[in-house]
Amino acid sequence: MRDAQTFLDGLKDEREVWYRGERVDDVVDHEVIGTAARHAAADFDLGAEHPDLAVTTDRSGRTYSTFWHVPRNGDDLARRSRLIEASTAQGATLVALVREIGSDAAFALQRVLAGRDPEAERIAAFYERCRDDDLAVAVAQTDVKGDRSLRPGRQEDPDIYVHVVDRRPDGIVVRGAKAHTSCSPYVDELIVLPTRALAEDEQEWAVAFAVPVSTPGLRLLASDYLHTEDTPWTRPISTDHKMIETLTVFDDVFVPSERVFLDGQAELAGELALTFVEYHRFTAVSYKLPLLDALVGLAVALAEANGISRAGHVRDKLTWLIGYAETVRGLTHLAAARARVDEATGIAYPDPLTTNLAKWTFAREYSRALEHVIDIAGGLLVTGPGDADWESPELRPYLEKYLGGAVPAAERLALLNLASELTARDYAGYQNVLAVHAEGSLEAEKLMLYRSYDPQPALEFVRQLAGVAPRAAEEVTTPVP
Amino acid sequence: MRDAQTFLDGLKDEREVWYRGERVDDVVDHEVIGTAARHAAADFDLGAEHPDLAVTTDRSGRTYSTFWHVPRNGDDLARRSRLIEASTAQGATLVALVREIGSDAAFALQRVLAGRDPEAERIAAFYERCRDDDLAVAVAQTDVKGDRSLRPGRQEDPDIYVHVVDRRPDGIVVRGAKAHTSCSPYVDELIVLPTRALAEDEQEWAVAFAVPVSTPGLRLLASDYLHTEDTPWTRPISTDHKMIETLTVFDDVFVPSERVFLDGQAELAGELALTFVEYHRFTAVSYKLPLLDALVGLAVALAEANGISRAGHVRDKLTWLIGYAETVRGLTHLAAARARVDEATGIAYPDPLTTNLAKWTFAREYSRALEHVIDIAGGLLVTGPGDADWESPELRPYLEKYLGGAVPAAERLALLNLASELTARDYAGYQNVLAVHAEGSLEAEKLMLYRSYDPQPALEFVRQLAGVAPRAAEEVTTPVP
Amino acid sequence: MRDAQTFLDGLKDEREVWYRGERVDDVVDHEVIGTAARHAAADFDLGAEHPDLAVTTDRSGRTYSTFWHVPRNGDDLARRSRLIEASTAQGATLVALVREIGSDAAFALQRVLAGRDPEAERIAAFYERCRDDDLAVAVAQTDVKGDRSLRPGRQEDPDIYVHVVDRRPDGIVVRGAKAHTSCSPYVDELIVLPTRALAEDEQEWAVAFAVPVSTPGLRLLASDYLHTEDTPWTRPISTDHKMIETLTVFDDVFVPSERVFLDGQAELAGELALTFVEYHRFTAVSYKLPLLDALVGLAVALAEANGISRAGHVRDKLTWLIGYAETVRGLTHLAAARARVDEATGIAYPDPLTTNLAKWTFAREYSRALEHVIDIAGGLLVTGPGDADWESPELRPYLEKYLGGAVPAAERLALLNLASELTARDYAGYQNVLAVHAEGSLEAEKLMLYRSYDPQPALEFVRQLAGVAPRAAEEVTTPVP
Amino acid sequence: MRDAQTFLDGLKDEREVWYRGERVDDVVDHEVIGTAARHAAADFDLGAEHPDLAVTTDRSGRTYSTFWHVPRNGDDLARRSRLIEASTAQGATLVALVREIGSDAAFALQRVLAGRDPEAERIAAFYERCRDDDLAVAVAQTDVKGDRSLRPGRQEDPDIYVHVVDRRPDGIVVRGAKAHTSCSPYVDELIVLPTRALAEDEQEWAVAFAVPVSTPGLRLLASDYLHTEDTPWTRPISTDHKMIETLTVFDDVFVPSERVFLDGQAELAGELALTFVEYHRFTAVSYKLPLLDALVGLAVALAEANGISRAGHVRDKLTWLIGYAETVRGLTHLAAARARVDEATGIAYPDPLTTNLAKWTFAREYSRALEHVIDIAGGLLVTGPGDADWESPELRPYLEKYLGGAVPAAERLALLNLASELTARDYAGYQNVLAVHAEGSLEAEKLMLYRSYDPQPALEFVRQLAGVAPRAAEEVTTPVP
Repeated sequence: MRDAQTFLDGLKDEREVWYRGERVDDVVDHEVIGTAARHAAADFDLGAEHPDLAVTTDRSGRTYSTFWHVPRNGDDLARRSRLIEASTAQGATLVALVREIGSDAAFALQRVLAGRDPEAERIAAFYERCRDDDLAVAVAQTDVKGDRSLRPGRQEDPDIYVHVVDRRPDGIVVRGAKAHTSCSPYVDELIVLPTRALAEDEQEWAVAFAVPVSTPGLRLLASDYLHTEDTPWTRPISTDHKMIETLTVFDDVFVPSERVFLDGQAELAGELALTFVEYHRFTAVSYKLPLLDALVGLAVALAEANGISRAGHVRDKLTWLIGYAETVRGLTHLAAARARVDEATGIAYPDPLTTNLAKWTFAREYSRALEHVIDIAGGLLVTGPGDADWESPELRPYLEKYLGGAVPAAERLALLNLASELTARDYAGYQNVLAVHAEGSLEAEKLMLYRSYDPQPALEFVRQLAGVAPRAAEEVTTPVP
Repeated sequence: MRDAQTFLDGLKDEREVWYRGERVDDVVDHEVIGTAARHAAADFDLGAEHPDLAVTTDRSGRTYSTFWHVPRNGDDLARRSRLIEASTAQGATLVALVREIGSDAAFALQRVLAGRDPEAERIAAFYERCRDDDLAVAVAQTDVKGDRSLRPGRQEDPDIYVHVVDRRPDGIVVRGAKAHTSCSPYVDELIVLPTRALAEDEQEWAVAFAVPVSTPGLRLLASDYLHTEDTPWTRPISTDHKMIETLTVFDDVFVPSERVFLDGQAELAGELALTFVEYHRFTAVSYKLPLLDALVGLAVALAEANGISRAGHVRDKLTWLIGYAETVRGLTHLAAARARVDEATGIAYPDPLTTNLAKWTFAREYSRALEHVIDIAGGLLVTGPGDADWESPELRPYLEKYLGGAVPAAERLALLNLASELTARDYAGYQNVLAVHAEGSLEAEKLMLYRSYDPQPALEFVRQLAGVAPRAAEEVTTPVP
Repeated sequence: MRDAQTFLDGLKDEREVWYRGERVDDVVDHEVIGTAARHAAADFDLGAEHPDLAVTTDRSGRTYSTFWHVPRNGDDLARRSRLIEASTAQGATLVALVREIGSDAAFALQRVLAGRDPEAERIAAFYERCRDDDLAVAVAQTDVKGDRSLRPGRQEDPDIYVHVVDRRPDGIVVRGAKAHTSCSPYVDELIVLPTRALAEDEQEWAVAFAVPVSTPGLRLLASDYLHTEDTPWTRPISTDHKMIETLTVFDDVFVPSERVFLDGQAELAGELALTFVEYHRFTAVSYKLPLLDALVGLAVALAEANGISRAGHVRDKLTWLIGYAETVRGLTHLAAARARVDEATGIAYPDPLTTNLAKWTFAREYSRALEHVIDIAGGLLVTGPGDADWESPELRPYLEKYLGGAVPAAERLALLNLASELTARDYAGYQNVLAVHAEGSLEAEKLMLYRSYDPQPALEFVRQLAGVAPRAAEEVTTPVP
Repeated sequence: MRDAQTFLDGLKDEREVWYRGERVDDVVDHEVIGTAARHAAADFDLGAEHPDLAVTTDRSGRTYSTFWHVPRNGDDLARRSRLIEASTAQGATLVALVREIGSDAAFALQRVLAGRDPEAERIAAFYERCRDDDLAVAVAQTDVKGDRSLRPGRQEDPDIYVHVVDRRPDGIVVRGAKAHTSCSPYVDELIVLPTRALAEDEQEWAVAFAVPVSTPGLRLLASDYLHTEDTPWTRPISTDHKMIETLTVFDDVFVPSERVFLDGQAELAGELALTFVEYHRFTAVSYKLPLLDALVGLAVALAEANGISRAGHVRDKLTWLIGYAETVRGLTHLAAARARVDEATGIAYPDPLTTNLAKWTFAREYSRALEHVIDIAGGLLVTGPGDADWESPELRPYLEKYLGGAVPAAERLALLNLASELTARDYAGYQNVLAVHAEGSLEAEKLMLYRSYDPQPALEFVRQLAGVAPRAAEEVTTPVP
């Protein structure tokens, strides 16, 4: 297992990363990307504080990161969930993600490719290296998609979805771009997966593989969304904790055969996409929990700081927030407890219905949760003093005199600034947009929830209640389109 | 263990029951109350179909009803929940309740009275008789309350809350009335509990006890809410399945000392009331599951019967219904899995936060669920033919020709009639009002949810994120008022 | 103008009405249908109490019912709305409808058929007779529809939508059935309209006409949904106020040419259907207002009767109810104030966007409104005493002693019974289902709302804000599919 | 009437403004405050484009800004609303406010002080100067409040609410601080109003007055919330359009008698606070309309740009957004149409119930509206390229190739950046917090809605329906606490 520094040292290579229009020389030394890298690096030091969670020892006594432990049952999934939660709490509500997402993809690839050689051997070998070398791995799944009313094979530009443009004896050449690739500038490897089900004649887009981030032709255009001139007083989370997404361009990237996991099997593309998100949504609901706890905690703390904690409407909003956060937590725990085990591989996965229910519950009420915290916090969220005002000897006395509540101004403003980051400033928008779109949209979650539900028991129950004859098996309704 | 017939035979005594203004001679022979009694009786034959659930064998090999099994851990609670669910499914979405509620009260009384003699001995003896004789027991808790802005001791009429009006060497005399007492006309015993916390000077209202239903002075005024002239074709549930509530009048009822569980200990009244609903809300969410399954199943079946199952908005409503039902089910399962064990008695109880979360989730969206089923079912719910039309040889051909959909008219109308009972007719209103009020109102559930939540971890997390010093223990906020 | 008795006398003819499987001899003498007829009849005596609203005098000094007054501007529409509201308030929250709906259809037919002879002349003549003879007219629009995934011309049975089966020199013969036809057993005339847009090859279903209810071959199968054995104490609205829907069967009904308004013009079917509901949804939101006022009034009255009007959550629910009712009222008034005038005919109609907004606002929160009233009212809604209990000299003293609140039991129970009818009993279900389905479903209202909105101003505004060039007219987006 | 330049020239004086810890020399020349001042200044040039709205001519032929026109009827209010809407649309969704809010306060002061001399004369004189000199006026109302569970007179520090600390023959001296004072650094005058009802013994806090911004002792600590290093490509609204709030400190400020409007009349404090917000909430709903139009327009434009405008769920969200925006617009128009006229002064004011309904409707669904726009827009809102990327010749080709949709990348990104400002970035948070708190919180709006409603008609209606005797006048319930 590596520590934070070893992880950071591993990022110094020829990778092509762009930030605010300029090529980045060294991602670790870079002011903004370095911050993101260090945020992720902290994950590698988690073993010191949570050895029980973070470190797994196999029968032979070898230790490796629990992130890379293949789940075999519900307890494994529950432990993985607790690890992700602990890591994200340490990350101040922002997930590290650099091993979470890569292992999600590795588990999915192993399940979908089981029994297919040489693909199964390739992913097994890749997975073992990730585990043994404790690698950081990003996943590029979402294609840029162009006009979404058109399928991959019907786009005007065939590169809109990543596809194979050349085949050589020793590998393939791919072209295209993926959007929203989290953490790619500061990981070791990049796994690429298809984003959706494909038609038979869309074989060239049925491609999955892994490449080192420093691979020639791979260009990472980093988003500067979370950049800021403010200090931690004003933005207590995002000055030190960042995640960076890229537009990930594959400019005729060569992938050696042993790193190609899917090439042309269009019928597997959809299954692979869905199996990945099955794991990834479970990762998501696990890492959302500290964010929800922060919203609940802030609401309780600010109600008290403002002297309004006895007001009926405040009590009502606190109760709603508690109910919201604990429903997501409860369903996440239950998704692990109801784990299913893939027969072919013995790999466990969280119950899809419960996982999607947890994720949908989280996503569809997140903006309402923000509204309640805003309501309790008050307008100072956007009209309060900035860091320079607080530092000013002329102004500080006025701020201390006038901006206290039931607690001193220093404490109240610290809480308000945290609330401002979580409900109003750029970081709030970042989390709010992620709530709707990351790991699949609201509609995608609803679709999976619908498909994961077996309507037969309920249907038979109502037919019996209505006195209508039970159905023959072949007439059975199924919600899968 | 008794069977249904033995249970029914036990109801023939001198009990004073009134229905539609008239004294009922024999509750089992009575057209309406007899139907309710037979509905409840079916619960006693459940062992034949579900012996694994319904029958418990203790170490000595003695068997008794699982309803009367004192839970010792989460598995016991989970089994109890499954039993209640199975029983209610057999009861066509209507709970039997005649052993569920009595055991809820018996468990609560044992916990609250632990270590207090002679009360602890009295409730132990009463409980053992219930278990050994497999009794049916109703619980009268909710007082009529009068003007709710006034406490029990401030009401103009002191009888508004049940209270002790006389003490004799061998027992007490009580007066007052309880509202909404379910099943009381057709059970063996009635447990009476206080409905709320009491002040020190309200000792006379701090009274709990058990009496046989045939006790002199106990008058049961049964509600006729679910009476109907319709046949099962029109009302497939409520013609054969009824539950009856009474206004339960205690007209100077004498209670022998050995049946008095609380007399004057005002400080225990609130705890007893809350401990009972802790169990009873868990019972409630368990018995709501078949009702929710029926709504989901009907929505799926009617979408198909109407030929609209592929419409986007229908898919959306089905998904919402599935998510709603499965969230309640998931939280119910989790409430058992997170069982806590009372130290003094070793009696297990479901996690209060999760139980109240499940109940609140159920209650606050129930009317929305009805709306979605109505939306999918269509206006025939209230404009369709009645049973006499369907039986008419002149009219049947028109109904068969014109009222089919994607399935024949007989099937579609049977489903619609079931939907009409569950969403529009008196039975729908009965369930809808129960959703809001039974086992505590929405506000009571919210209050318990709020009180069951420990805010400390979230508070400490945000204080750390905000860079504010952690608090000394004595400053710790707690939401309990 | 006719009075109530004249209207009732006019219903005695050879009409074929069936109720609970039996042919009805005389609808006025019939226990249930007669009640519905008398409910509708009261509308004809409205002029005595509201002459300003109910009676219109034209330039020549002739008077006629305001219901039959063709609106020429917003004031006419506002007056029509107030008349409908006053009439429905007199009808105890249940609309009379026997002139409202017929005039809605007559206005729509005049607009759609303008300039087409002989159809325009026919509808003009029919309208004038309605106005001059003050007729009661029902409208049969909704076909039974069969499998809704199939168009009219693709149904297995061509009769599933009403269609022309024969053409004769002097008229047409129609066959099929309409569902949910309100009031048809107790009106003079029946207008039949197509229910949806039709394809070019569906000409035989493009048919609109009017027939007297006594026309041979017209069979009305009345729903018995609102029948009850209870008295007005228990059901204070529905024992005296009923509306009855029929399955309206056209068994080869001959329609003389001068009564045929549409025959084969498939391209007009959709426009006619939509123009009718444009008026009819305005009628609907007008007649919903007393129902909403009753919910608000009950909530206020019961909060007081229960002694809970100072509780924060009660205040919150009252405020929500007020906001809900007054938003619907406000948008209804605005729909009239924003009246548009049809150029060809000079006939005014309410603003479609505002009308659909009002109706959708009403419909999508109605079940939530019921939930709030239930919450404030309490469980006695379904567990309280029946009429026979209240009449019983033995039981009345107990009810009076124990079921009062902050007001005497007689008053509290009267309010609770009214609330029970409006939120729990069959009548509540009737209104709740109507909220979702009558005058078009929620989805239909949303579709019309979407189509009525002109997105151009908003689109141009955002293009300007975004610095994107304005569009050429031909590129303009329109939400109409 | 002044033009923009004249207004700006008027801001150059000795005012004490602090920004990011430093004293501002010249607010117009200041990089950030100057931007805000120029945003406000544009309002003074509005007459060129909208002379009909912006300029009012009195009987004597004198012209003045419509903002300063005292409304006498509903038409005046409707015109004022349209002017505010037009001005805010010109301000790119951000209100100018520098004459809106001051006139709101001036109208309220005139009404409340009517008949009280010399106060009435003082406000009349002040108002006339505002109108004749076309002044820009901010309003400081919200006190900093300290511990909100304590009344003004019970705070540990008496300065927490602004109060009179000295009385001199020629005026008063005030001390304290107001929070959230919008636009104060770049207006001519500041009106100060009490923030709440006061008790009899809180006379020293019952103070209202006006002072020039350059008055000695008045210190404005400006919030830097909307500062940014980004360019208009990334933040198309907030780089050029800002509003700035201050913590407004009164450090023993002397106010001459002729500028004191309230001094010690504690009984008028609450009325004055409420009368002001009566106008100010109407101003608010008027200036929210362009913001809502922008959300609707963006959703329509981005649905099209992404190629998803035919998806059912997208249609559903667009319809919801249209319904939301048009309900607020409709109720705003109606609030004017239902104008009431103050008897004593002849000054018109918008209907309070309708105004509060409009504002509450806006506020309680604003975060939901953002969620829907985010849903349609996609994750690029927070992962897309920044301005420097777009300007980079190396990167632009990739952005153009890969980030187009159904429209070219330049257009799609421009729309996405606008959406990002409105839904995710700091400006989004600013507007979202304002939605909840500005012009009164959600709870304040609900309270006024409740109080503005007359329950008598609904109560009498239900008493009549329930057969309960009507009430004597003195028993009449009123919701006013």
